[in-house]
Amino acid sequence: MRMVDLIEKKRDGYELATEEIQFIIRGYTDGTIPDYQMSAFAMAVLFRGMTERERADLTMAMVHSGDMIDLSAIEGIKVDKHSTGGVGDTTTLVLAPLVASAGVPVAKMSGRGLGHTGGTIDKLESVPGFHVEISNEEFIRLVNENKLSVIGQSGDLTPADKKLYALRDVTGTVDSIPLIASSIMSKKIAAGADAICLDVKTGAGAFMKTLEDARELARAMVSIGRHTGRKTIAVISDMSQPLGYAVGNALEVKEAVDTLKGKGPEDLRELCLVLGSHMVVLAQKAGSLKEARAMLEASIASGNALEKFKVFLKSQGGDVSVADHPEKLPQAKFQIDLPALESGYISGITADEVGLAAMMLGAGRATKESKIDLSVGIVLHKKVGDPVKKGESLLTIHANQEDIAEVKEKLYKHIRISKEKTAPPRLIWEEIEE
Amino acid sequence: MRMVDLIEKKRDGYELATEEIQFIIRGYTDGTIPDYQMSAFAMAVLFRGMTERERADLTMAMVHSGDMIDLSAIEGIKVDKHSTGGVGDTTTLVLAPLVASAGVPVAKMSGRGLGHTGGTIDKLESVPGFHVEISNEEFIRLVNENKLSVIGQSGDLTPADKKLYALRDVTGTVDSIPLIASSIMSKKIAAGADAICLDVKTGAGAFMKTLEDARELARAMVSIGRHTGRKTIAVISDMSQPLGYAVGNALEVKEAVDTLKGKGPEDLRELCLVLGSHMVVLAQKAGSLKEARAMLEASIASGNALEKFKVFLKSQGGDVSVADHPEKLPQAKFQIDLPALESGYISGITADEVGLAAMMLGAGRATKESKIDLSVGIVLHKKVGDPVKKGESLLTIHANQEDIAEVKEKLYKHIRISKEKTAPPRLIWEEIEE
Repeated sequence: MRMVDLIEKKRDGYELATEEIQFIIRGYTDGTIPDYQMSAFAMAVLFRGMTERERADLTMAMVHSGDMIDLSAIEGIKVDKHSTGGVGDTTTLVLAPLVASAGVPVAKMSGRGLGHTGGTIDKLESVPGFHVEISNEEFIRLVNENKLSVIGQSGDLTPADKKLYALRDVTGTVDSIPLIASSIMSKKIAAGADAICLDVKTGAGAFMKTLEDARELARAMVSIGRHTGRKTIAVISDMSQPLGYAVGNALEVKEAVDTLKGKGPEDLRELCLVLGSHMVVLAQKAGSLKEARAMLEASIASGNALEKFKVFLKSQGGDVSVADHPEKLPQAKFQIDLPALESGYISGITADEVGLAAMMLGAGRATKESKIDLSVGIVLHKKVGDPVKKGESLLTIHANQEDIAEVKEKLYKHIRISKEKTAPPRLIWEEIEE
Repeated sequence: MRMVDLIEKKRDGYELATEEIQFIIRGYTDGTIPDYQMSAFAMAVLFRGMTERERADLTMAMVHSGDMIDLSAIEGIKVDKHSTGGVGDTTTLVLAPLVASAGVPVAKMSGRGLGHTGGTIDKLESVPGFHVEISNEEFIRLVNENKLSVIGQSGDLTPADKKLYALRDVTGTVDSIPLIASSIMSKKIAAGADAICLDVKTGAGAFMKTLEDARELARAMVSIGRHTGRKTIAVISDMSQPLGYAVGNALEVKEAVDTLKGKGPEDLRELCLVLGSHMVVLAQKAGSLKEARAMLEASIASGNALEKFKVFLKSQGGDVSVADHPEKLPQAKFQIDLPALESGYISGITADEVGLAAMMLGAGRATKESKIDLSVGIVLHKKVGDPVKKGESLLTIHANQEDIAEVKEKLYKHIRISKEKTAPPRLIWEEIEE
């Protein structure tokens, strides 16, 4: 088999055989296929697409390019949740204890990642004492005991995907549904998921700007799940404005605690209940979404969900008292309100620009070496559709620097106020199952 | 400027600016743009194409990537001829002395090349004593004196094209008209051509298998000529069967001499008269194609064309007596006839397969290191449309080995005989000027 022939086959619109895709990924992983052939292949895939079978084969070839996590020692169906990224997305912090309290085993392997704010582990580390440096045995024991544990990524998972992702980033081959879908799914499957619940974001703050693109990606991933024997569902949710109110690490932990107490933002609560219900059903802890939702609502109302979060934090060294004393979380030196310049209704809050503003404050990583400031960020007081009076605070900036003129300017520019009442954006667009 | 942005721009179907194309070629030549970005770009070009302006810019950017030959010390308009490759293509050997005898300066820089038979220089070296190791000054003096000289390629011409061509070869990005056209044109312009006469082959033995593809390539090159101020014309000619009768190095030299004497194969003579007429007009040595053709026919009839060939050979050390004593050219040990297995009419001679048969005998180079056997090859006795009787010789194999069973098998397989009379293929399909 010669790579050049396979590039031409894809270029000319033919379907590649399973062993051809395995040849490509194996060769790219071990270096016998050079970057310059792989990038030409990726560009051909971008133009020609891939069939459902090819996508599944590509996913599994990437899974087998490195280590696979074995979670078989954990009882029950391991359901992993993945969000395609967004701004102020606190869902994992809420969902993990929430579905664990309904008996779903949550064995979360998480990274730190680049972005507007840190990854799940960064956020959790704003709880004093909390750490993810536990052994694999301890991790499995904790999930079996408490139904919930979070560990840092270990092992060499999907090296082919890592290499290909870096290459795509510099060769104009990121925007390909088959490549995006197989990249996400390969990571979830290699991390040991039996079933997968996807939160595909759409809107200005999301990777998929349009509903059509989000739907195509969601369907592609659900199809890969079906072909690879991992039951997968996808929810398409709004990311035209930030989810919830908080954008920042410690700020989002506080918001998650509020939500587990039943006092969080309505959109965050609703999305967590929708995603959580699917996870409970996927884990076969309820027979219907309705039943699952009732279980989760009851768990919040009874305090069981919050209690689960506390048990989890404590089991990994965290100071549980933060749940009742959020002032123990890292606090920024300055809290600066941003007053509305006119009266009217909020007509738009561009999610990714708010994310960039948080990043300018130090909440996220631009490169792997960047250090995150866990205390800083933004807390919105208004969302799209809300009335606002001139001089009223739109949001509070939590900063460790006094000079935040640029941040203010960016936020003013991307929070729009109109005289006419605007409807809030729809939160859940679609739920896609096979 | 960032290469990744330019890849995406082309990928999304936008036209690149002149300076963007210059940035790409400069960066690729100096190594700041890596192969993996260039191959993705080439694949995007393959799918999206290039405008006429982009193609001309790409051509000139490649011309300026290295040395340019300065032929200004040669009097007159320097017309270069290029063939897109074929089997048994003896046109250059005939054309060079033929048009030189009509006063057109022929300053030919030639390579050895890979292929079924050698390049023009290899073929000429079958004349005892002939060599191309002459200085640039000598080269220019000879052209001014005799109107004809051939020199080996020197200097670092179009290094960007060399690098890109090698990359395209292994990344499935060869079959792109803009890339093929700019590659050919950049080499001709860098070699100092004022005007260019193109012989675009079509048919089984050609790079462009269909007339449509040949026409598209021809038009692309003529357009580049117009945009870069090099008057260019293209003739689309048949390469479904070999041109002339001889396929081999010394064998083609003998055939060229025969043609200059007016005793060569009709198709070779006709194509040389058509291409030669265009060259004479491009060099402004005649006012019309008709007048030019009359000059060339007269030159053959009078012996002037043959005389020019002899003067040329002698000026570069060659033994002129080969013109009258072709047995002084390298001779193969064995001459083996291939008898027809049935009676009928020749209905097809697959050109590239005959070329491969010649290569199996040792007439061509598979790699740069291969040594060519100048004496071997094939001489056809029949062409498509000719009647043939069972047992009559189809061709003579000139070999230095006795075991040529495989060569025979290949030739039998690709020379088809039918009961019905078949018309010979059309030789000249189109002549394209702006």
